[in-house]
Amino acid sequence: MLSQPTFIPVGTQATVKSLTSEDLKTIGVEIFFCNTYHLYLRPGDQVIRRLGGLHKFTHWNGKIITDSGGFQVFSLNQERGIIGKLSKISDNGVEFTSHIDGSKHFFTPEKSIQIQHNLAADYLVAFDDCAPYPAKKEDVREALGRTHRWALRSLAEHQKLNRKLHQNLKLYGVIQGGCFKDLRQESAKFICDQNFDGIAIGGISVGESKEKMRQVVDWILPTILKTKKPIHLLGVGEIDDLFHFFGQGITSMDCTLPTRLGRAGYALSRQAGFKFKISNLRLKSDSAPLDPDCHCYVCQNYSRAYIHHLFKAQELLSYRLLTYHNLSFMINLQNQIRKALKNGTFLQLKREWLGC
Amino acid sequence: MLSQPTFIPVGTQATVKSLTSEDLKTIGVEIFFCNTYHLYLRPGDQVIRRLGGLHKFTHWNGKIITDSGGFQVFSLNQERGIIGKLSKISDNGVEFTSHIDGSKHFFTPEKSIQIQHNLAADYLVAFDDCAPYPAKKEDVREALGRTHRWALRSLAEHQKLNRKLHQNLKLYGVIQGGCFKDLRQESAKFICDQNFDGIAIGGISVGESKEKMRQVVDWILPTILKTKKPIHLLGVGEIDDLFHFFGQGITSMDCTLPTRLGRAGYALSRQAGFKFKISNLRLKSDSAPLDPDCHCYVCQNYSRAYIHHLFKAQELLSYRLLTYHNLSFMINLQNQIRKALKNGTFLQLKREWLGC
Repeated sequence: MLSQPTFIPVGTQATVKSLTSEDLKTIGVEIFFCNTYHLYLRPGDQVIRRLGGLHKFTHWNGKIITDSGGFQVFSLNQERGIIGKLSKISDNGVEFTSHIDGSKHFFTPEKSIQIQHNLAADYLVAFDDCAPYPAKKEDVREALGRTHRWALRSLAEHQKLNRKLHQNLKLYGVIQGGCFKDLRQESAKFICDQNFDGIAIGGISVGESKEKMRQVVDWILPTILKTKKPIHLLGVGEIDDLFHFFGQGITSMDCTLPTRLGRAGYALSRQAGFKFKISNLRLKSDSAPLDPDCHCYVCQNYSRAYIHHLFKAQELLSYRLLTYHNLSFMINLQNQIRKALKNGTFLQLKREWLGC
Repeated sequence: MLSQPTFIPVGTQATVKSLTSEDLKTIGVEIFFCNTYHLYLRPGDQVIRRLGGLHKFTHWNGKIITDSGGFQVFSLNQERGIIGKLSKISDNGVEFTSHIDGSKHFFTPEKSIQIQHNLAADYLVAFDDCAPYPAKKEDVREALGRTHRWALRSLAEHQKLNRKLHQNLKLYGVIQGGCFKDLRQESAKFICDQNFDGIAIGGISVGESKEKMRQVVDWILPTILKTKKPIHLLGVGEIDDLFHFFGQGITSMDCTLPTRLGRAGYALSRQAGFKFKISNLRLKSDSAPLDPDCHCYVCQNYSRAYIHHLFKAQELLSYRLLTYHNLSFMINLQNQIRKALKNGTFLQLKREWLGC
């Protein structure tokens, strides 16, 4: 299991967009995150199983974590107005519609775990019911009950498949409960009492304020820390989040930030706001690297002016170079935080970066 | 100057699409082709000059060749119906409209050469008037006269700038004359008589049949070969072309084939037709590399099934991996042809590849 503070980039469709596995290794990435919903629909978990699992499929010998598919099923369908009042959810599972071809599918906890065992990442996530935000307490309570019943079904199916397939994949249970203190604490207690290998916190970073998100984690962290199990924050990972949560003892976070910003033409840097737009006219003749403090391949070899040009000309290489740098930037920050936590210089590092 | 048979990939906007300079080096690319028209409009030749020229701008220490901009000015404007009967061409130069913002610009031979000296590639091309295909003989004759007058003006400006800027860039003159034997021979004689460093053949591969293209080259090749100067074919480079023209003594060709096919989802291979569609359903679970005979980075590490998935999912990495392989395939073929020509096994190699 993960034991050090780890930033996990997202490779939704079994690819961290524009980068090869060899790039990831060079950057220092140790693990990336794949989305079960997407891979189930395309190319299909059976295809990936026949090809030897996600590691072989992607030619990656680091670690991989897959989610349960639950969050995508809910959020994509909600966005498209297909699930009105979550009317397609029953205690058995969730019916959903493919965003690719409109076909109907049904996920149960067992099905999610079976798919994840076919994908055969290192770390799996139990199937949960993530209530929308904001939501009425009674709705969150109902979703939470289901999340807990599904946690037990996920765990049972996982243990069965680990035995049957002679593999030793690891399963994270997911704490839900929205922004309600009693529900979150109830969930933390329930999930921590089960035989999961790791504890994930879900239903955060779904639209609530950053203060609220931190409060939710504060409510439950003491309970989770007692288990000594690795703790994963689902869908979190801005720069101040890394300081805040790694400083508290959270083990890992996954976030699309560096890759998504790269494709949108933003470069991460130490300057104000931690990012700048590469399309800024000021950069047209700027021969400096994206971030003069960065030692990544892109910053060693390419100028802002060149990447500015590539981005303005909508050249594929621009997305690749920006993504590479942004991910290097996050991994470098992760490594600095690891070191500072070991050396007892964490607060100093945090002050240098955040000014507080 | 180039002395061996050389396939030149195209990097229109100062980037061989999706690849880094380091990729090109690893693939074995020695030189790539940039388009003066595009770089003049964006980011501007003055910007590139201030940044130290194309080599520094693109972080590439191999060779670069730029074209004159003439072909783009004519063809892009013709495509868009802006130049009806070439009405914007005068003996002084050509007025054209930017495809980016519709602004008006004027190229003369001197201007083209000045821009190319600002870009500072290793090899430059004289400004020419490429008649459309098909065209009436009187129109081709008129364009040819202009091409020759512009050749002299290009050469004079080039020599002046080489002296002034203390640089030793090399200039190719361009033979035109459409599909008319007497005009082509007249042009070959005229261009070969001037003090150019290399001889380019233009106005081929513009819509005429492959037989016609080869005939045009046959008419003028004896005259050019006598000069002992390197010979470049503009815009040519399918697999059978490499065998045909390198076998005849042509030095180099530039072609968008491998990069364009890659982005369109085609992989080059030795099988029938020399290419296959990666989106073919048969490949969904195919764990073989794109081309089992290829030793490139992509074929060593990634499967058809993975690249099939990436392409179907419209992932950026698919274009990159296909482009990388296709370019490796062409460079590998170039190297095989070089070796065979040295060893006297060229006809045997050609038979193996083309069956004739």
